[in-house]
Amino acid sequence: MAIITLTTDFGARGPFVGVMKAVILRHAPGATIIDLTHEVAPCWCGEAGFWLARTYRYFPAATVHLAVVDPGVGSERRIIAAAHDEQLFLAPDNGILTMIPGLAQRARVHRLSEGWRQHQGWPEPSRTFHGRDIFAPLAAALVTGRARIEDIGPAITDPQRAALAEAEGDGATLRGQVVTIDTWGNLITNIDERLLHEFTEPLVAIGERHLTLTQTYSAAAPGMLHALINSFGVVEIASSRGNAAEVTGAKRGDVVTVRERSSG
Amino acid sequence: MAIITLTTDFGARGPFVGVMKAVILRHAPGATIIDLTHEVAPCWCGEAGFWLARTYRYFPAATVHLAVVDPGVGSERRIIAAAHDEQLFLAPDNGILTMIPGLAQRARVHRLSEGWRQHQGWPEPSRTFHGRDIFAPLAAALVTGRARIEDIGPAITDPQRAALAEAEGDGATLRGQVVTIDTWGNLITNIDERLLHEFTEPLVAIGERHLTLTQTYSAAAPGMLHALINSFGVVEIASSRGNAAEVTGAKRGDVVTVRERSSG
Amino acid sequence: MAIITLTTDFGARGPFVGVMKAVILRHAPGATIIDLTHEVAPCWCGEAGFWLARTYRYFPAATVHLAVVDPGVGSERRIIAAAHDEQLFLAPDNGILTMIPGLAQRARVHRLSEGWRQHQGWPEPSRTFHGRDIFAPLAAALVTGRARIEDIGPAITDPQRAALAEAEGDGATLRGQVVTIDTWGNLITNIDERLLHEFTEPLVAIGERHLTLTQTYSAAAPGMLHALINSFGVVEIASSRGNAAEVTGAKRGDVVTVRERSSG
Repeated sequence: MAIITLTTDFGARGPFVGVMKAVILRHAPGATIIDLTHEVAPCWCGEAGFWLARTYRYFPAATVHLAVVDPGVGSERRIIAAAHDEQLFLAPDNGILTMIPGLAQRARVHRLSEGWRQHQGWPEPSRTFHGRDIFAPLAAALVTGRARIEDIGPAITDPQRAALAEAEGDGATLRGQVVTIDTWGNLITNIDERLLHEFTEPLVAIGERHLTLTQTYSAAAPGMLHALINSFGVVEIASSRGNAAEVTGAKRGDVVTVRERSSG
Repeated sequence: MAIITLTTDFGARGPFVGVMKAVILRHAPGATIIDLTHEVAPCWCGEAGFWLARTYRYFPAATVHLAVVDPGVGSERRIIAAAHDEQLFLAPDNGILTMIPGLAQRARVHRLSEGWRQHQGWPEPSRTFHGRDIFAPLAAALVTGRARIEDIGPAITDPQRAALAEAEGDGATLRGQVVTIDTWGNLITNIDERLLHEFTEPLVAIGERHLTLTQTYSAAAPGMLHALINSFGVVEIASSRGNAAEVTGAKRGDVVTVRERSSG
Repeated sequence: MAIITLTTDFGARGPFVGVMKAVILRHAPGATIIDLTHEVAPCWCGEAGFWLARTYRYFPAATVHLAVVDPGVGSERRIIAAAHDEQLFLAPDNGILTMIPGLAQRARVHRLSEGWRQHQGWPEPSRTFHGRDIFAPLAAALVTGRARIEDIGPAITDPQRAALAEAEGDGATLRGQVVTIDTWGNLITNIDERLLHEFTEPLVAIGERHLTLTQTYSAAAPGMLHALINSFGVVEIASSRGNAAEVTGAKRGDVVTVRERSSG
């Protein structure tokens, strides 16, 4: 089974995703294409990398994950492919893939060479839509096994740093941020649950609000703001039967901290 | 052909639907997954049940319909599967499935037992995303035939009552509500066309507006509000070449009535 | 490989697209269905035709392209199918298909006859959802080869004129319009790049703003409005790292002109 996942900031307007699928199916007839999400905030590479990092393990081995959040399209930015954890990853070299834990350290990473691309017989790429003109046929070549990542260009050891830093602590306070906001208004942060192990009774703060950790969405009283470890292993701020984004006015990028309750 | 349909309130932001598909494909390679809708209003089980009830017959026999609108995730609510009308249905026991006509009376309904789940070798479920951790692999087990619904746990005869009541009449006036509003702004109600047979010249009312029934969207003069029986067999309020939701300011849950014109 | 593409103004709310796929899969088990876009502005046939015309070549030969933007559903409007450029097209006869270059002149175009439809054994169609009741089973019949377009009804030579005229020039000034606005706020026009060949240094204008052509999204200084030829071969107005629709307040249908810079 050949599976390609797509992660973009293309949204649902227009045929951008559909035409990428057309090119994939031309080059990899019968491939299964799964939309991971197309609602990454425009040019917000951090969200694309965050979701890829937190979801790729649910896919079968040999899945090809293609992420196209590409503000530098048409410039000199590199295109890279990585083999990591029995799966393949393909994206512009802008810090999306290096958000995947261990990838920068342990994966085989290759950059697409202009020479290899020119030998594929693909139409000359546009300057503004490499998702269709380069990434789609390349993903198809990888998923069908017609190309291995070592075929497409030289190995590199200097991919761009992660587009979004991990949450950091100074011993007393952990400092992270809101990476994304879901359909229900939950604020999803980059604070990994493992970082919370150093606290006895962690208190999560956003702006002037201080929240205790609960276990489920329904555990807090209706209307109450609370925090929990979500199903992707990070701190999330929710409003029971409400919309935390509306209640708090919080936006993507806003600071979220964790400290010991007793220290307050 | 193994088909699974998905109906959720997950929206398009984030990888929630995509990761459910990952798990389904892991457990049921080659399955066809159809998105019925992911734009159910958050936690509005009535809309999920309404659409399932009105659409499942269009799918081939043996389709597995999975609905995950699940405000009680992580609490003690049951998970149920039903065999009805040659198709299979899977959802939290919160009144979604019992909106399907005849299901509460005639279907075989089983609840998922904790014991059976634990024997499947699935990863330990999270507290907040059973769509991925329980429903997806269970749907895959059912669609591949690896499990029958009688395997997953005991039969039950007391599923939760329908999340949304049927429209009701007192002889003179039928009383229903707006279940959902579509992309064009049409107000879709729970008033079934069969209930209208008792009227000679039905008059549909929402707020202070009284509307006659027409046959098609283009039958009314431009800008006119009118009512019709839509293609799913219920009363719908539309604005010719306009947006009825904007014109009326109506919201989900608003009351819609039908009475005899001459009685006015 | 049997591929059907879908282009509609149905949006994501409700099961309208999902139920069309149900009917397609009933009649064409195993078909691959690609969503081209469902976010055409309500009843805006020009956008549907524009995107079909600019994308169909990316799909494999024998793909069936189904467009359902159908304000006249239930009225006497015709349903037509066209064989053009090794692909098949199916839509209401409202000027969507005739936006495809050369189709009106060179394609074989047939209209669906009532007699043929009645012999298919399909359920009686509703008055308001021919996408599900006629177009979906018809697309399935065409993609499986069970019907050829000459089977479904008589050839016609008078399909409706293109829903959206091409940009026009008077020698000095080209005059086009904004056809659609994408997720990033880029204003996509109907001004084909070939029309620009007559200019030495084209200046693109929208409202009071005059813009020079650049090559890529990142070529302009941050915040600057600029114009470029996009990857579909038409003039597009973009704001570097911004949202051109918000910056300009432009809407679908707004006039965009091109003239010689030196003539200003």
